[in-house]
Amino acid sequence: MGAPGQGSGPRGGAAGPREFFTVRSVSEALTGFRPGRRTGVDSVGLSEALGRIPAESLAAPHALPGFARATVDGFAVRAADTYGASEGLPSYLDVAGEIRMGEPPEVEVVTPGSAVAIATGAPLPRGADAVVKVEHTQAATPELLEILRPATPGEGMVRADEDAAPGAELVPAGRPLRAQDLGMLAAAGLVEVPVHARPRVTIVSTGDELVPSESRSLASGQVRDATAPALAALVREAGGKPHFAGIVADDRDALSATLRTALPESDVLVVSAGSSVGARDETAAAIASLGEPGIWCHGLAFRPGKPTLLADCGGVPVMGLPGNPRSALVVFRLIGMPIVRQVGGCTDPPPEPTVRARLTRDLPSAAGRLDLVQVRMKDGEAAPLFGSSSLLSILTAADGYVVVPEAATGLAAGSEVEITLYG
Amino acid sequence: MGAPGQGSGPRGGAAGPREFFTVRSVSEALTGFRPGRRTGVDSVGLSEALGRIPAESLAAPHALPGFARATVDGFAVRAADTYGASEGLPSYLDVAGEIRMGEPPEVEVVTPGSAVAIATGAPLPRGADAVVKVEHTQAATPELLEILRPATPGEGMVRADEDAAPGAELVPAGRPLRAQDLGMLAAAGLVEVPVHARPRVTIVSTGDELVPSESRSLASGQVRDATAPALAALVREAGGKPHFAGIVADDRDALSATLRTALPESDVLVVSAGSSVGARDETAAAIASLGEPGIWCHGLAFRPGKPTLLADCGGVPVMGLPGNPRSALVVFRLIGMPIVRQVGGCTDPPPEPTVRARLTRDLPSAAGRLDLVQVRMKDGEAAPLFGSSSLLSILTAADGYVVVPEAATGLAAGSEVEITLYG
Repeated sequence: MGAPGQGSGPRGGAAGPREFFTVRSVSEALTGFRPGRRTGVDSVGLSEALGRIPAESLAAPHALPGFARATVDGFAVRAADTYGASEGLPSYLDVAGEIRMGEPPEVEVVTPGSAVAIATGAPLPRGADAVVKVEHTQAATPELLEILRPATPGEGMVRADEDAAPGAELVPAGRPLRAQDLGMLAAAGLVEVPVHARPRVTIVSTGDELVPSESRSLASGQVRDATAPALAALVREAGGKPHFAGIVADDRDALSATLRTALPESDVLVVSAGSSVGARDETAAAIASLGEPGIWCHGLAFRPGKPTLLADCGGVPVMGLPGNPRSALVVFRLIGMPIVRQVGGCTDPPPEPTVRARLTRDLPSAAGRLDLVQVRMKDGEAAPLFGSSSLLSILTAADGYVVVPEAATGLAAGSEVEITLYG
Repeated sequence: MGAPGQGSGPRGGAAGPREFFTVRSVSEALTGFRPGRRTGVDSVGLSEALGRIPAESLAAPHALPGFARATVDGFAVRAADTYGASEGLPSYLDVAGEIRMGEPPEVEVVTPGSAVAIATGAPLPRGADAVVKVEHTQAATPELLEILRPATPGEGMVRADEDAAPGAELVPAGRPLRAQDLGMLAAAGLVEVPVHARPRVTIVSTGDELVPSESRSLASGQVRDATAPALAALVREAGGKPHFAGIVADDRDALSATLRTALPESDVLVVSAGSSVGARDETAAAIASLGEPGIWCHGLAFRPGKPTLLADCGGVPVMGLPGNPRSALVVFRLIGMPIVRQVGGCTDPPPEPTVRARLTRDLPSAAGRLDLVQVRMKDGEAAPLFGSSSLLSILTAADGYVVVPEAATGLAAGSEVEITLYG
């Protein structure tokens, strides 16, 4: 983990403009705030292993497929016996027998001048170094075969170790397991896979106006907690196991008590802060008192998402998210999901879907600040969606987003940009 | 479902070259083989709903957020009272009280000439149509406020129905639920979501050489079933529920019996066929006898994956996959996953990650045939991976694949192509 920020809490009360002691850029946060924490190791069966993160590189315990195998239907031969063969002047070979799938071979060795009928997938008899496709042969008599084209050694077959040599790496540590990786592990008989445990991510919501999303009726001024269920989904996407610790009042003591209880049971701790300046101050104070080295940044040069707090409290990464639901989700996708992945041992995150498109409108920004703007795709163009960062409808209407980099002062209408698509 | 193919089975025995009665192009298969079957409707809680497919469009039961809300910390005012205000010539307003989050407001109405202190997220009192940021004010006395900049109506607030009007669509039917969709549903109190049931996809492996992947030791010529566990993972990725019906011998009667038992319990039925021509014939015959209208195509103009069989057996889509594991996985990703998604009600599949890159080598193809070639990405270039379609290692080594379209006779080295990345 990088150096903690100076100071132990934000300055400025509810009545005055807010100051941030330590504001970092998004790229600083992505590269500098590096939790050292890693989850332990679980063993899971192949049917549970899709997307899980191997805790170690897994190697082939033996050669794969394990025997030289025909890859076509035809005749196992010594390639040299076929050299010079043509339709006009075939080579003639004695058919010495047949190798059927799953049955003991009629013939164990192909001797010079002979051929053995073989099906795709069957093991080559000794002596054979090629399989001639049935289409390139003709039966002169039931026992005599005409070879119409020459075969080169290795043709129509795979070697015993062509899919994997003994000890070869089948899947690397740190990359989420894909379908084909599971197939390869199955081929090798590795049906129990050591994977990183899913990081346990505790989510705490604060806000005096919040009620649980199950609430049927709302009193005046109340809103249902939309952030926590959406954060839980993002935690799952990042391979974590969300745990919702409930809604806490905007009160430092109540929040501190909840966070202290949650900390020892969490690999990552996320506080979805209240939206007012006062509520954010309470959150910052509660996090600051949680453990050393403490707060790493009080804010990010990021729109939307300036009031984002990152801390290392006794080895547990802690995030304080902005109070507006849209800002909270945007920040968590950009900063929080990589933290969850990292704690879960993922060093090679899956690629994100992107598309290049022309912007329909100017996107002004400030140098040194990263802006993230939702867009709606229409006729191959990307139309930015504007509105209050309290509005979730902008996120649900969006097909993806564009980033205005820290170095840029904006993006011009008509410029071609990369859109990251919501999947 | 499209018209079934002519004929009831493939022609040609194990000894001769294989013929396909009905060979279709990949695009014909993707557009013409359209199962009408849809799964029923489940109700799931928000914590289980990520990626699930809403069975119907879900609408807001009431306006969201439900009340006009401050989006900044400041003072609720009548905008007209601030017109003309400046630092040199402030407007003066009486501070009539304060609105705290989660408490009954001290003041219910903002009268002309007055202002009410308000925190971000709190409900606007009646009469107010704007919130002036605290930074644009100054306290002349505790009861008298200086407004230093004019506010326009609607500034510093959101309307009661700005996130959603009553009856507005919150999420559409058919699109997998994303994190932000779950947040929006939570905000609306819609915590039980009607979604399509996961399609039950039965996987049957055939092949006399196959043994279960759990098998510790292999007899001569045996290989572990690598295809079924990998297919199961692809079924999960497509939102289905895989069910493995086991390994069946390359025998028409045994296979028919297994398929007949599986059919009534399946939304999709997948046979991972044996690799030899004889085994494929047995599979085709068993599928042909399963039900009407029957076989739609006996093969695809597709490399790798020509011996792909598609059938509609009494309303259940049935796929016969090539025997080589790599071909089977490639075909299932391209043709099978869309079928599973469609049966599961997904009309708007999630975008796939792609990247543009230059090819390092020529890729020859045949016009009228679609080729799919795995590539490894290196220094922004895409290096094609060649080798037997029996080799799974090509799939595990690959970062993605390039498609040579049906109309093309190949792609030249150096040309820029779109790579679909394995996720």
